Amino acid sequence: MKHLLFLLFISFSNVCAQQSLDSGRSKEIRSPEINADNSVTFRVKAPNALKVVLQGDGLGAKGNVEMMKGEDGVWSYKTETLTSDLYSYSFLVDGVKLNDPNNVHQVRDVATILNVFLIEGGKADLYKVNNVPHGTIAKRWYNSKILGKERRLTIYTPAGYEQTKNKYPVLYLMHGMGGDEEAWSALGRAAQILDNLIAQGKAKPMILVMPNGNISQQAAPGESTDGFYKPTMQLPNTMDGRMEESFPEVIKFVETNYRADATKAKRAIAGLSMGGFHSLHISRFYPNTFAYVGLFSPAIMPFGKTTSAVYENFDTSLQKQKDNGYNLYWIAIGKTDFLYKSVADYRKKLDALGMKYTYVESEGGHVWSNWRDYLAAYAPLLF
Amino acid sequence: MKHLLFLLFISFSNVCAQQSLDSGRSKEIRSPEINADNSVTFRVKAPNALKVVLQGDGLGAKGNVEMMKGEDGVWSYKTETLTSDLYSYSFLVDGVKLNDPNNVHQVRDVATILNVFLIEGGKADLYKVNNVPHGTIAKRWYNSKILGKERRLTIYTPAGYEQTKNKYPVLYLMHGMGGDEEAWSALGRAAQILDNLIAQGKAKPMILVMPNGNISQQAAPGESTDGFYKPTMQLPNTMDGRMEESFPEVIKFVETNYRADATKAKRAIAGLSMGGFHSLHISRFYPNTFAYVGLFSPAIMPFGKTTSAVYENFDTSLQKQKDNGYNLYWIAIGKTDFLYKSVADYRKKLDALGMKYTYVESEGGHVWSNWRDYLAAYAPLLF
Repeated sequence: MKHLLFLLFISFSNVCAQQSLDSGRSKEIRSPEINADNSVTFRVKAPNALKVVLQGDGLGAKGNVEMMKGEDGVWSYKTETLTSDLYSYSFLVDGVKLNDPNNVHQVRDVATILNVFLIEGGKADLYKVNNVPHGTIAKRWYNSKILGKERRLTIYTPAGYEQTKNKYPVLYLMHGMGGDEEAWSALGRAAQILDNLIAQGKAKPMILVMPNGNISQQAAPGESTDGFYKPTMQLPNTMDGRMEESFPEVIKFVETNYRADATKAKRAIAGLSMGGFHSLHISRFYPNTFAYVGLFSPAIMPFGKTTSAVYENFDTSLQKQKDNGYNLYWIAIGKTDFLYKSVADYRKKLDALGMKYTYVESEGGHVWSNWRDYLAAYAPLLF
Repeated sequence: MKHLLFLLFISFSNVCAQQSLDSGRSKEIRSPEINADNSVTFRVKAPNALKVVLQGDGLGAKGNVEMMKGEDGVWSYKTETLTSDLYSYSFLVDGVKLNDPNNVHQVRDVATILNVFLIEGGKADLYKVNNVPHGTIAKRWYNSKILGKERRLTIYTPAGYEQTKNKYPVLYLMHGMGGDEEAWSALGRAAQILDNLIAQGKAKPMILVMPNGNISQQAAPGESTDGFYKPTMQLPNTMDGRMEESFPEVIKFVETNYRADATKAKRAIAGLSMGGFHSLHISRFYPNTFAYVGLFSPAIMPFGKTTSAVYENFDTSLQKQKDNGYNLYWIAIGKTDFLYKSVADYRKKLDALGMKYTYVESEGGHVWSNWRDYLAAYAPLLF
């Protein structure tokens, strides 16, 4: 009987994930293996391949290194010691992009799926799930009359939210071009960063609202009535003013559905790239709404033609924003960011207007590694 | 100036997703393409490959068909007309498992990542995001004193929950072996199924609680302090009685944190495979707690040794459950399910005890396609 149960157990284990589609996944291969010195070994079995390349920022020369084939048909590559960060990578096997079959941890960046791993012992400890109280991540739908659709947003309520009657300050956090309401929680590790900063006493407990900044979308690809389509960077109407025009609907939804402190002093907005653009223009167009503004590698002006009133009277509205007062206007960009010059020009404009801001210049370019850093630096300055 | 802006736009579009790692992804290739007759064409570019196989249940002979190479290095395969369902697949390129580089829509089944697509016009319309009011999906953490850890669950609150003061009935929905608190929402499309059934008036608005049934885990792989590890089916202590023993903590958490109707008449439990096992034993061990019990392809007895009191006095506790009364005891299994015989034996036991149940026998085996069906059939019978 015991023997039978054991056989049944084996059979059960083999069958009950339903699929036996994983014949290409070699169960014994460990990849990525994070070694004691924080070098990382990648392995992938491809016995018939002629060339296998590891692709990933910060993992080798120009993010593109050839792997070595072993006698067992397993290709491998060992990096130098890596600094603490969240890294993404994939393989290129004879020209075909392959995700690591031995690493189920992936993120989607627009239309590209990338494997991820994390090197601890430094800044990436903020991106880990640590043994601290955890907030709640929810996917909520709200109605936008202005955009004429039901729309989805991601909302983080901090640990303790449900146990108190307190009102909480709110940070609205905007994604970049090609992103959506999932970008900051998946690629940006926003929930983990906030959980950890709050637990360390470095940031105030706050609500984090991550809307979808693409007005053509209801929700992220696969999460709307558009079904399982192929995402693209080229979305219509991303910078035509209507996201800004409809933003009060997001604020109203949050402030009527959550215990949000509905005062200017307790509202912050920030965003990366196109989301920095949205943050700039939303905070300027509604010039007495946010006490804190964060522009992470921001785009400054709309790309393409627009006749929206949102982008008119730029200087006048900035002047109003200045006169109304704010606590923090925070700009960060990497030294090699392709938007560096336009941000430098924008700073000159702010200087000319006598508008105070904090400016942070980091290494690197237009990358998530920077945007996680910026969130981790910005959130502690709020409220 | 306009020209400059255009150039900047192009550069922006190319850079701002940060990665240029997608050199292996051919942007022009459409895969999967769902044709007008609901046949599906798969395509993958692999110019140097010697053999490319499409793997996927219901897509061809034994779920494993060779693709044909075209002159452009693109391999393709066109299926017969497919019936409405959510399908999963992957490729095998010269023995290496490859996810479709042109389809970002994926699910994780234990340690295997599979691409998905959906054929409309039948039962899969229930799995789509339709133009109906949407509930909220949240990832919540609760404390389990019995298991000595913070634990994560997925909770669905139906559309309208936040706009009313009503109390709602609760369905506890348990995953199978190797699954976790993400299985029912990702593979099971539980939120979409409930959104659609509720909108059609076929199911009552209800709260859906999807706990993590692996007592060794805090949360799904990658979502706990264990970090980004490789998932496995072989988790310790999955059937040693402690999940059942700790289950009142889940109920208490839900009934104190949500507007749950905390009466037996408004509590249901159901689960698939190991989750059917959990549902069977939890409902029997607390024999006056649930008015509705659903066993989807259930395991009946624990695999391996256990000395837990939970599995003692089986017949006595079933008798108690019967005497206390319930509204529905619902069992479903596929004709080719490897657990078919043990379920048949269990039905004999129920018959011998005179314990009423509804029995549904479907085609097919131990697969998500059936479990989604069972949820869609079971939820309308509740409350």
